[in-house]
Amino acid sequence: MSRFTFEVLVSLKPGLSDPQGKAVESSLPALGWTNVSRVRVGRHVALTVEASSEAEARAQVEEMARRLLSNPVIEEFRILETEGRG
Amino acid sequence: MSRFTFEVLVSLKPGLSDPQGKAVESSLPALGWTNVSRVRVGRHVALTVEASSEAEARAQVEEMARRLLSNPVIEEFRILETEGRG
Repeated sequence: MSRFTFEVLVSLKPGLSDPQGKAVESSLPALGWTNVSRVRVGRHVALTVEASSEAEARAQVEEMARRLLSNPVIEEFRILETEGRG
Repeated sequence: MSRFTFEVLVSLKPGLSDPQGKAVESSLPALGWTNVSRVRVGRHVALTVEASSEAEARAQVEEMARRLLSNPVIEEFRILETEGRG
């Protein structure tokens, strides 16, 4: 068995209202930035999975992202592999 | 001026206690996963910056991440460029 570290990026689906993103966006001008738009705030989850292959680990992370880490009705996710260890 | 889209990944510094990560970790066995460890939950912020170059846009995003999007005492961040548009 090997260990694989992944990152799951969970964000609201496009078009849905994002109050956290709006809050960040409206704080920016006071700090001098008026050139920023489309701020969206989501979650970042890092985790380490023990599996016999990278493909198996990734498939499990996909399922975790779908079943536990995101709400598929309003959110979408992307998976990055950070590091694989033999 | 061009538009550049970045993602800022904000996570707790290693070693700091992460209650959200622990909550996710303790839900996993009930769903059948006992092979997952080191779960850390952070934030994911996507934003679009208008600037004259990618380097200038990135420098601004770094400063936003430091001053507004993260708490440098307990968090660290990483910046990904998603897309640059001419």
